[in-house]
Amino acid sequence: MASPIRFALLGCGIVGSGVVELTTRNAAYLEARVGAPLELARVVVRDPSKVRAAKIDPALVSTDAAAAVADPSIDIIIEVVGGQEPAGTWIETALRAGKSVVTANKSLLAERGPSLLALAAAHRADLAFEASVGGALPVIRTLRDHLVSDWVRSLRGIVNGTCNYILTRMRDEAAPFDVVLSAAQELGYAEAEPSLDVDGHDAAHKLCVLALLAYGAAVTPADVPTEGIRSIEPVDHRFAARFGYAIKHLAVARETAQRELDLRVHPALVPARHPLASVDGVLNAVAIEADGAGSQVLVGRGAGSLPTAVSVVADLVDCARNRRAGVAGHQTHGLDVVRRPIAAREGTEAVWYLRMRVADRPGVLAQIAGALGTHEVSIEQMVQEGGGRRASDRQGGEDDTRVIVLLTHTAFERDIRAALAQIDGMPFVHGHSLALRVEG
Amino acid sequence: MASPIRFALLGCGIVGSGVVELTTRNAAYLEARVGAPLELARVVVRDPSKVRAAKIDPALVSTDAAAAVADPSIDIIIEVVGGQEPAGTWIETALRAGKSVVTANKSLLAERGPSLLALAAAHRADLAFEASVGGALPVIRTLRDHLVSDWVRSLRGIVNGTCNYILTRMRDEAAPFDVVLSAAQELGYAEAEPSLDVDGHDAAHKLCVLALLAYGAAVTPADVPTEGIRSIEPVDHRFAARFGYAIKHLAVARETAQRELDLRVHPALVPARHPLASVDGVLNAVAIEADGAGSQVLVGRGAGSLPTAVSVVADLVDCARNRRAGVAGHQTHGLDVVRRPIAAREGTEAVWYLRMRVADRPGVLAQIAGALGTHEVSIEQMVQEGGGRRASDRQGGEDDTRVIVLLTHTAFERDIRAALAQIDGMPFVHGHSLALRVEG
Repeated sequence: MASPIRFALLGCGIVGSGVVELTTRNAAYLEARVGAPLELARVVVRDPSKVRAAKIDPALVSTDAAAAVADPSIDIIIEVVGGQEPAGTWIETALRAGKSVVTANKSLLAERGPSLLALAAAHRADLAFEASVGGALPVIRTLRDHLVSDWVRSLRGIVNGTCNYILTRMRDEAAPFDVVLSAAQELGYAEAEPSLDVDGHDAAHKLCVLALLAYGAAVTPADVPTEGIRSIEPVDHRFAARFGYAIKHLAVARETAQRELDLRVHPALVPARHPLASVDGVLNAVAIEADGAGSQVLVGRGAGSLPTAVSVVADLVDCARNRRAGVAGHQTHGLDVVRRPIAAREGTEAVWYLRMRVADRPGVLAQIAGALGTHEVSIEQMVQEGGGRRASDRQGGEDDTRVIVLLTHTAFERDIRAALAQIDGMPFVHGHSLALRVEG
Repeated sequence: MASPIRFALLGCGIVGSGVVELTTRNAAYLEARVGAPLELARVVVRDPSKVRAAKIDPALVSTDAAAAVADPSIDIIIEVVGGQEPAGTWIETALRAGKSVVTANKSLLAERGPSLLALAAAHRADLAFEASVGGALPVIRTLRDHLVSDWVRSLRGIVNGTCNYILTRMRDEAAPFDVVLSAAQELGYAEAEPSLDVDGHDAAHKLCVLALLAYGAAVTPADVPTEGIRSIEPVDHRFAARFGYAIKHLAVARETAQRELDLRVHPALVPARHPLASVDGVLNAVAIEADGAGSQVLVGRGAGSLPTAVSVVADLVDCARNRRAGVAGHQTHGLDVVRRPIAAREGTEAVWYLRMRVADRPGVLAQIAGALGTHEVSIEQMVQEGGGRRASDRQGGEDDTRVIVLLTHTAFERDIRAALAQIDGMPFVHGHSLALRVEG
C-alpha cells in the first residue's frame, strides 16, 4: 500500500469542517484517484473547544499553526483561515519547506498572489486556490487549464453572494437597501460588519485572482476602481426592468484595444436575456468571452460549507496526486505573472443608465439635457416619473420630487462624471445622481 | 532546452485545423506551460490535396494513419476523425504502444469508452476527451477533476446544438420542424442526413460519456431510451410558453432512490426560470446537481472549429505535461468504471405535458379525462384550443380539429403510455398524441 499523503487543516470553521466531511465520506474513492490515502494529520484552530466537526480525533487538534507548517511529515497545507496575517506567513513558510498549499484566501492572493506563485515555483511546490473565487464554481481550473490555448477578451463575474442576494431581494420586494441588509444579516447572508461585501472589496479581491489567471496580470485591489451597492434604490430596479435589464454587482476584467487591462467592480445593468441577468440570490456566476472558445458562463453556489469544500478537495487531490507522482508544481508551471498596464477608467466607454431626483419645475429637463450635451453625452431614451406617489420612492416630505432616468448612447466615463458633477450642482437637483454602466 | 513533445493529428477537418491554428498561434505560451515545445509531427488525412489549414508543412501530411500510430517518436495522438472504425483501432494501437490519446470521438467512447479507459490504465497512458461533449465547455474536466469528492445526483444537458437551434427557431418563428430543418441545413447547422442529430443519437452518445464520468458507469447507447425532436410542433412551443416552460432537447442522467441509473434523451419542458431554459440557438449547456456543490450550470459553444479545438488543446497540454513529468495516466487514474443497474424508464415518474388533436364533438373531453383517470393520471391543468384558425395548427382540411393540451400531476411513464395508447385508439383522435416530461 502506498504511504499516505498527509495534510494539515489551518482553520476548521464553515469551510474546514466541510473539507473534513468530504474527505472522510469519500476516503476510499479519493484514495483510488490519488493512488494513496489522504490522511488528515493536524487541525489548527484558535479555540479547540469550539471544533464542532464530527469525526475529528481530538488528538489532532491544536492551536499551533507553526508546528503544523514545520512538521516534515506533512505534505500539504490547507489554509482556510483567511486574512493577510498570520495566514500569509504560514503559507510562505510551508511553500519554502516545499509543501503544497491549498488556500481559499482571496484577500491574501489579491495582495500577494504573484509573489506567492513565484515562491511556489522556486520551491517546486503547488499553490492551488480554486475555492478563493466562486465557491463551488470551477472557474480557476477553467481559466488556468481549460482555456490554456485561448485568449480571454473579457470576464464578468457575479462573485459576491451577499451583494447578489441583497440586490435580488431589493428587486423582488421593492425594498430599500437598509431593510434588506438587516434581513440578510439576520439570515446569516451578510456579516454584522458588511462593508467587505456590500462595498465591493471582496469582489475586488476575487477580480485580482481572476485577472492573474486570465491575463497573467500582477494587479492588486488598488488597481481596481471599486463601488458597492449602497447607492442602488428600488426605483433603479424598476427602471432597469422597464428598459429590459437587471441590476447586478459585477467584477469586470477586460483587455482594451490598446491591450491595457480595464478592471472594475460596480453595480451595472445587464440585458435581461444575458445569462448573468437570471443569476439570482446567493448564486455566483462568471461569464468569459474568449477568442477561441467564444462565450462561456459558469453558474453555481458561491459560498457555503460543502460547495466551497468541494473546490478545496479538488485542489487537495490535484496536489496529492502530483506529490505522489513527484511532480509538485505541475499545475502552475509556466504561469508567468507580470505587471500589466491598467486602463484609466475615465477613458473607457459604455452605455450609461443615469438616475437623478429633481424638483418638479419647468425647464429642469432642458438644463439636464443641456449639461449632458455640453459633455458630449447623447441621450438614447428618457423617462420622467413623478412625485412621491409610490411609497418606495418617497423622500421625506419632498412631494414635488420627480425621478428622471435615462439611457445614454456610448459615452466616456470622464464625460459622464463631468456632466453629473455639473447636474448635481444645479439648485433643483436633490442629492447625488447615480450612473451605472450597461454591461454584457 | 527540453526535447519537444511530438503529436500527430488524425483528421484535419473543422476541429483539426482549429487545433493547428491554436497550437501555432500560442506556441510560446504552451511551451512555457508544458515545459517543452509541442511539435506537430504528422497530419493524417483522407485526401492530402484537401488540407486547407494554413501553416502545415506539406511534408507532414500523409494518408497513413497506421504509420503515425506506430511512429515511436510520437508521444500523443489526437484523433478527430470520428466514427467507430478505423478510429477505434488507431486509438487502441496507440494506447497499447503507451502513447497518450486525445479524442473528440463521442460515438466511439459511447460504445467502447470503458474498455478504452481500461486499456489506457493498463499501459499507463492518458486518454483525454474533453472535446467529445459540449464543444468548448469544460464539462469533462469538471466531472472528472473538480467534483472528485462530490456525488452527482443528476445532470441534464443540452448537448446537441442542431436540436437546440431547430427548437429555438421553431419557437421564435412559429415554424414547423421540416421548414426549420431545411433552413438549418442550408446554413450548415444541420447535416444533409440529419438523423444522428435530430433523432437524438448524438446526444445519447454524449450522455454515455457523461454517465461514465459522473457515475463511473459503463453504459452504451442501447441503455439510453432516445427520442428526437421530429414530433414537436409549433403549437407545443406556444403552450409550453403559456404554461411557463421552454421546450429543450435534453440528455438526462439521474440516480434513483434505488441507486439505479435513469438515463434518457428526449425533448422536455424546462421551467422558464431554470438556467437551461434560456440556452438558445447553437449553445450547449450542462446542469449538474451534486450533493456537496449544489447546482452548477455550464453554458457555452457546443461546436465549431476553435471552440472544440480549445478543448482538444487543453487535453493536449495535460497529456504533454504528464509525459514530460513521466506521469502519463495521471488524470484518469483510479477512474473505476463498472456496469450499473439501469432504471426501467416506465417506472420513473414525472409531471407530463400531453398534447392531442381531436375532432370537435361533444363528450371528447370526458372520454380523455376518463382514460387518464383509469390509468391513475391526474390532470393539473388543461387547455382546449380550437379548430384550425391559426395557420400553424391547421391540419389539411380538418376544420373541426381541436388541440387539447394538459399538464398532469406526477405520474409514472408506464401509466402515461398506457393512457395515451387508449386515447390514440379513440375514433375522434387524430394521429399520435405527444407526451413530454417536465424536467428541472
